[in-house]
Amino acid sequence: MQHDGALAGLSRRQLLSLIGLTAGTAAMYQAMSSLGLAQESGYKGPVKLEGDPKGASVLILGAGLAGMTAALELRQAGYKVQILEYNERAGGRNWTLRGGDTYTELGGATQKCEFDEGLYINPGPWRIPYHHNGLLAYCRRLGVTLEPFQQLNHNAFLHSSKAFGGKPQRVREIKTDFRGHVSELLAKVTQKGALEGDVTRQDQEMLLEALRSWGALDKDYAYRESLHTAEFRGFAKDPGGGLGAAPVPGKPIALADILSSGLWDSLANFALYEFQTTMFQPVGGIDMIGKAFAREVGDLIQYGAKVTRIAQDDKGVTVTYEETRNPGSTKQASADWCVCTIPLSILSQIEINVSAPMQAAIEAVPYVSSVKVGLQFKRRFWEEDDLIFGGVSYTDLPITQISYPSTGFNKGGKGVLLGCYTWNGPNSYEFTSMAPEERVKRAVEYGSQIHPQYKDEFENGIAVAWHRSPFTLGCAGDWTDEARKEHYDNLCQIDGRIVLAGEHASYIPAWMEGAILSSLDAITRLHQRVVSG
Amino acid sequence: MQHDGALAGLSRRQLLSLIGLTAGTAAMYQAMSSLGLAQESGYKGPVKLEGDPKGASVLILGAGLAGMTAALELRQAGYKVQILEYNERAGGRNWTLRGGDTYTELGGATQKCEFDEGLYINPGPWRIPYHHNGLLAYCRRLGVTLEPFQQLNHNAFLHSSKAFGGKPQRVREIKTDFRGHVSELLAKVTQKGALEGDVTRQDQEMLLEALRSWGALDKDYAYRESLHTAEFRGFAKDPGGGLGAAPVPGKPIALADILSSGLWDSLANFALYEFQTTMFQPVGGIDMIGKAFAREVGDLIQYGAKVTRIAQDDKGVTVTYEETRNPGSTKQASADWCVCTIPLSILSQIEINVSAPMQAAIEAVPYVSSVKVGLQFKRRFWEEDDLIFGGVSYTDLPITQISYPSTGFNKGGKGVLLGCYTWNGPNSYEFTSMAPEERVKRAVEYGSQIHPQYKDEFENGIAVAWHRSPFTLGCAGDWTDEARKEHYDNLCQIDGRIVLAGEHASYIPAWMEGAILSSLDAITRLHQRVVSG
Repeated sequence: MQHDGALAGLSRRQLLSLIGLTAGTAAMYQAMSSLGLAQESGYKGPVKLEGDPKGASVLILGAGLAGMTAALELRQAGYKVQILEYNERAGGRNWTLRGGDTYTELGGATQKCEFDEGLYINPGPWRIPYHHNGLLAYCRRLGVTLEPFQQLNHNAFLHSSKAFGGKPQRVREIKTDFRGHVSELLAKVTQKGALEGDVTRQDQEMLLEALRSWGALDKDYAYRESLHTAEFRGFAKDPGGGLGAAPVPGKPIALADILSSGLWDSLANFALYEFQTTMFQPVGGIDMIGKAFAREVGDLIQYGAKVTRIAQDDKGVTVTYEETRNPGSTKQASADWCVCTIPLSILSQIEINVSAPMQAAIEAVPYVSSVKVGLQFKRRFWEEDDLIFGGVSYTDLPITQISYPSTGFNKGGKGVLLGCYTWNGPNSYEFTSMAPEERVKRAVEYGSQIHPQYKDEFENGIAVAWHRSPFTLGCAGDWTDEARKEHYDNLCQIDGRIVLAGEHASYIPAWMEGAILSSLDAITRLHQRVVSG
Repeated sequence: MQHDGALAGLSRRQLLSLIGLTAGTAAMYQAMSSLGLAQESGYKGPVKLEGDPKGASVLILGAGLAGMTAALELRQAGYKVQILEYNERAGGRNWTLRGGDTYTELGGATQKCEFDEGLYINPGPWRIPYHHNGLLAYCRRLGVTLEPFQQLNHNAFLHSSKAFGGKPQRVREIKTDFRGHVSELLAKVTQKGALEGDVTRQDQEMLLEALRSWGALDKDYAYRESLHTAEFRGFAKDPGGGLGAAPVPGKPIALADILSSGLWDSLANFALYEFQTTMFQPVGGIDMIGKAFAREVGDLIQYGAKVTRIAQDDKGVTVTYEETRNPGSTKQASADWCVCTIPLSILSQIEINVSAPMQAAIEAVPYVSSVKVGLQFKRRFWEEDDLIFGGVSYTDLPITQISYPSTGFNKGGKGVLLGCYTWNGPNSYEFTSMAPEERVKRAVEYGSQIHPQYKDEFENGIAVAWHRSPFTLGCAGDWTDEARKEHYDNLCQIDGRIVLAGEHASYIPAWMEGAILSSLDAITRLHQRVVSG
């Protein structure tokens, strides 16, 4: 490592650590940028794999987004590439269920999807944040057409079975009223002098003005029933046209009622960077992404290949697999290098000769339990009756949320909504333990507490419990901070001739972007080793 | 009027007034509902014009949305209908400019739109709130395909030329940081006992918990630089994949800086009921709506008809007009009834024999001054460089806002954005006074302070100043509360054989929904008069 003048006495790492301790991580990041150490990850435009790999071969395990990204780029860089894939399709968790599809989960239960033409559910990933640059770049490059995904819908419901007599409340009402009450409280104590000493007099004046604007307060800094608050929270009677058209405001919900309902808990969810507007989804189903990759690298994929052993020596890697169409068969594939994207939940059960630290890392990460249920209804009553166009309703019932389709708006006809989406916790395990038809039945029963129309309009459903998925045994890597500290770097290091990739080898677990960025980082380092070796 | 038992001593109006005074307008509205008086306006499903009009004829003035709604429904109800329209196209302010279109404003300046194929700007209305039920119902009925319109984009900019050295800030940062600071302040004074007496102890406990969640506060109720706050406001370095992928938080903006910047002022804007998610636009341009109506009633429209006089007696209505293709010509059209949708800005200059109260109402409403400028760029740099997909950036510069297209996301290629959108105030008048090319030039100059890419990427532009529009002389009716009190009902009453309709005869001025609801209300009352007369 080169020395940098005055910094000569300290290693870069020591220096950065010092800066971090004294000035905070943002300052450290600035320093890292100056030293050219920052932004080692993150998408920075098309990956550049320069230099001749001289005919080196790479065996890729898994034809999900990580595996196919690696295949696409490595072949283009001059490698001989082969992919082994367990499923009979590409995409992995990038997967869409449509009418006619069948799915057999662990335990043997097989479901046939009975959705009408054009309707679908995405059991795995389903939405794309605007800052997932790597994924967006591949969508652009591979011609995947995107449309907005609605996450926050102000007219969707927040529901607690224990509050407001079980009656769902509109997001816009809880959101506006909570903000209004908070603004009123802070304005009043400001006027009483409670901020003296902490906020300058001049800032207090501006704060009052800002609270009045932001909180929809009146001239006395009160948040109350008025046409002004209605302009934010909605009306009891909307403004109309012609005679008798004057609007009527609704009555704000009291702060005490919002607090005790717990419904404020969902507001933070909507504000997350990962969920902020503008989000996207591919037109036609999330698997349009996997299919677009497969158009590029499909010729490299061997389907129905169940990996049973990964062996390496200093010359190369040999992978043993079973052809699933030919049970008991033993096949082998070899290459100079291996990019393994098999989920850790499965990889931890496969014999692989890697270093002890990598083996420990492979075994250190439990997988998220998640259940999604897609429900088809005779009509899009959520749009027609409730004016809910896309977005998510949250509930304290075991289904956790109901998400409405972000496509085909205002056209009428049938629709499929996501009638249950659990993420860890007892509800997830309970739904996983049920037979698929029971999951669907429960989703309809619970959902009808929020949308009574369910009972008349329901037609059919399909349920995916990720812990019963034969190809992942879980939804996504569930890292704790402690596990990351101990194992993450060991997981990502190139181990001899093997490098791992996938959402589990990223800081964006469960997101497609994590799989892609992990893959780009892994193949960049692998390529550097190959061309410098 | 029937008496209602105990209410016999009071008129309904007196009763309602009493309830309103003592219990607030929401309670009054409940009472009105009980008495069957509420929801006289608002869209309640397809209009029902029952009863035989026995060959009665209606002359409709104006083929905008109000006029065409009236024509569609009245013909279907059995009326003989004719429409006179000043322009050579239907739609009125429901209007889209595309490459090849020309537009001549008052004063004679003619612009030719030079946008590339597929690009457009909507000079008038451009977005549809989810609760504009009437408009949504006609879109459904007439087969207008909708797509989401992005209003709030968390990654768009808030810009003040006087703050942060003129550097635009991201909406997500201002929004999250302001909420965080407010939460912290209120949490701290709550802990100090400042809410004692106003909020119960138990509610204070819950409030603290809610503020911590909503404001992204830490365990000590502080809002500070951390990965937790970054999960809401965004990161200095986003999380990535593989090695070196750990995220780095950014530093929150100090409350004092947010307050003095005035950027908080735009946050309320995003929260308005009229601007909340989910909003819509027609695929292909707003005029898809006008065109869809014109497919139904185009055969009834006489284009290029400039109304100069509207006369009525107890037998019918006679309208004098000039054929604009034949200057100086004098033509007449007659019918039993007239639905006049001519904007008041123009109607007030036309001879019409209506009652003094209606004449006074026609003269009482000034029109909004508004300017829109569409700018075409060689590439969609706002997406490619700045990750801004749709939505609005607000600025204190005279252009007021920049709105990015809500369609064609992530595809690359050229794009048209709305580079200026003023609404009343001196900026609007100043832009209106300029020649069109000067408006475009200024929009590019101002906009380049927010997007420096403007200078290299700009190709061409077009500017519409509504006060110079020959067919409206302004953007929309600009009612004050006082004017409404005095004149609104007089404007909407059927006057002899004439009834007015349009956004100006609604409580939703400037919105397409106002035009449609006004029209439905007007023709419903007109029809009642016809069949009962």
